[in-house]
Amino acid sequence: MTGRAPLKLQIDLGDRSYPIVIGQDLLDDVELAAHHVAARDVLVVTNETVGPLYSARLLAGLAGKRVRTVELPDGERHKTLTVLERVFDALVEARMNRDACVVALGGGVIGDMAGFAAACYQRGVDFVQVPTTLLAQVDSAVGGKTGVNHPGGKNLIGAFHQPRAVLSDLGTLRTLPPRELRAGLAEVIKYGLIDDAAFLAWIESSVDALLALDMDALAQAVRRSCEIKARIVAADEREHGQRALLNLGHTFGHAIETAAGYGEWLHGEAVALGMLLAADLSQRLGYIDTADATRVRELLRRAGLPIEAPAIGAARALELMGMDKKVLQGRLRLVLLREIGAGIVTGDYPADALQATLRGHFEVPA
Amino acid sequence: MTGRAPLKLQIDLGDRSYPIVIGQDLLDDVELAAHHVAARDVLVVTNETVGPLYSARLLAGLAGKRVRTVELPDGERHKTLTVLERVFDALVEARMNRDACVVALGGGVIGDMAGFAAACYQRGVDFVQVPTTLLAQVDSAVGGKTGVNHPGGKNLIGAFHQPRAVLSDLGTLRTLPPRELRAGLAEVIKYGLIDDAAFLAWIESSVDALLALDMDALAQAVRRSCEIKARIVAADEREHGQRALLNLGHTFGHAIETAAGYGEWLHGEAVALGMLLAADLSQRLGYIDTADATRVRELLRRAGLPIEAPAIGAARALELMGMDKKVLQGRLRLVLLREIGAGIVTGDYPADALQATLRGHFEVPA
Repeated sequence: MTGRAPLKLQIDLGDRSYPIVIGQDLLDDVELAAHHVAARDVLVVTNETVGPLYSARLLAGLAGKRVRTVELPDGERHKTLTVLERVFDALVEARMNRDACVVALGGGVIGDMAGFAAACYQRGVDFVQVPTTLLAQVDSAVGGKTGVNHPGGKNLIGAFHQPRAVLSDLGTLRTLPPRELRAGLAEVIKYGLIDDAAFLAWIESSVDALLALDMDALAQAVRRSCEIKARIVAADEREHGQRALLNLGHTFGHAIETAAGYGEWLHGEAVALGMLLAADLSQRLGYIDTADATRVRELLRRAGLPIEAPAIGAARALELMGMDKKVLQGRLRLVLLREIGAGIVTGDYPADALQATLRGHFEVPA
Repeated sequence: MTGRAPLKLQIDLGDRSYPIVIGQDLLDDVELAAHHVAARDVLVVTNETVGPLYSARLLAGLAGKRVRTVELPDGERHKTLTVLERVFDALVEARMNRDACVVALGGGVIGDMAGFAAACYQRGVDFVQVPTTLLAQVDSAVGGKTGVNHPGGKNLIGAFHQPRAVLSDLGTLRTLPPRELRAGLAEVIKYGLIDDAAFLAWIESSVDALLALDMDALAQAVRRSCEIKARIVAADEREHGQRALLNLGHTFGHAIETAAGYGEWLHGEAVALGMLLAADLSQRLGYIDTADATRVRELLRRAGLPIEAPAIGAARALELMGMDKKVLQGRLRLVLLREIGAGIVTGDYPADALQATLRGHFEVPA
């Protein structure tokens, strides 16, 4: 794709609308950063892994502005209010005011933290996302959810704060560990499953190219994922309804992440297995057939994603899904597949079907 | 006013509109709290001074709900991100979810912190203000500004988050230290000065009754202050323009608060002196005459508010107002009085007029 013009999408949210630009080596396009970061005062938030790789190129595009950089420790366990204070400290020390702009250079953790800092600093300043992981490019950088974790749960403290622009440089994926690339693919597959059967078929035919970092294939995958997310977010910015479709695999996945202990499973890996369970339950409910469920499993396997659950037992899995008795009687809404390419949010399923799914995956064989 | 029906105002902000209820002994009206706090799960945030005085009465009105209380230390110096974590901890420990409601029972610090916690917890839950100081009843509980301080400045970290209701029980002012009552009166006087000459005249005729805690007079003062603030906020929720009028006296006041050292001056006291300086500068610019400026000074004196500035020198005052040379050349916008009852936000004044005002108040006489 070298030399091709970047793709551009628009997220339509009224006066909070913003563009997503997708292309190779965007970081070398000095006019692009200058165009989308209108502020004179800029704080770049990055981490100790991504910063050394890419911040010099980003800073070259911001020449002439007053730019500070803050480098946070790398990893989900640093996504805390305490670490966030370093971002506020940097903003205050640089005496940045309401027309400053915060730029997030990194993956989902950096984007969520920088965005939340931008949401709160002086009750809201601009921010721009420069996502450097596939997961961030197709999911977390788009849609305006920002925040940090609390010891009691992920993303419990946060804000809805839309970026001014998302600049996705596909070239940064070359330095991404392969395991993280695969975790990002889980979210790409998710969009196909909940919204677009043709896209899912395309992923099936392109999974090897995607894993081999074919830039044309990656551009296509990021573009279509963002289109789907953009449409869903535009219709339901604050998740009162259909935005919940984006959580396919997440409730099951949450149980897996928690049971396995901190950091053992990547988020995308847990979501992949969660989607497998959602397909299993969807099949038990008669929404999809065995061939469909096998198709989901096979795609996840080819993408190098986990298809075996940890043997924690169905009871523990249920507990970790945040369910008590009352919830089991139909109150916990799950995202299931009405068919391949069509998700459905429903609390209307028999408890024993869910139990069968959990026993089928989480029980140690006798 | 005992036995009279409470007054009710509506803040008009589209789907974020909410009522302000003003009356004596509202805390004893068990139906009122139940009506305005619709959630089943409630976290009451208060402090160690106000909690013992009033939380039992509030809790009686919330009978039948699942209510937790968190009591923070009292005072502006505890308005920090670190102390705010206790509110998040309480919400998480009680496993409250998105349909919970946070109730702020206290003064401005409690309202700002509880409101900010509500803005961020799970990216936004409901909150209700039960202000127990005059300053909170006429100012901070209305308008949706929430947040905490940073060591580098006040209210630097926060959010706009409107309450679902403001319940102002005038009876709680009986336990307010007289100095804090006077500081609250400074904000009442501010509304008269920026917006309503007739209200200012009424305050002049009622100041003794207000200081003597006459409930009819207080009801009138709180109602009219809220009406004025409500109208200004409705027109400019996020302070892009006219909402800045509400900052009359605040830029000068900020210099005084900072110079005097932490906690020496109450916010309302510093604002009072700041309004005196704003009147002085307005007179030098020919907006108001000597009689008007004297009238402002006399009202502040009768309200028991400070009219003598600390002798910190004009240069230091200017520095603390956040001004450098460039700003002095007309870029810092100040709120001045075009006439009594009409504020104006302007950056258009000669630097030497401002210097004369500062020298007249902050210099030690030779």
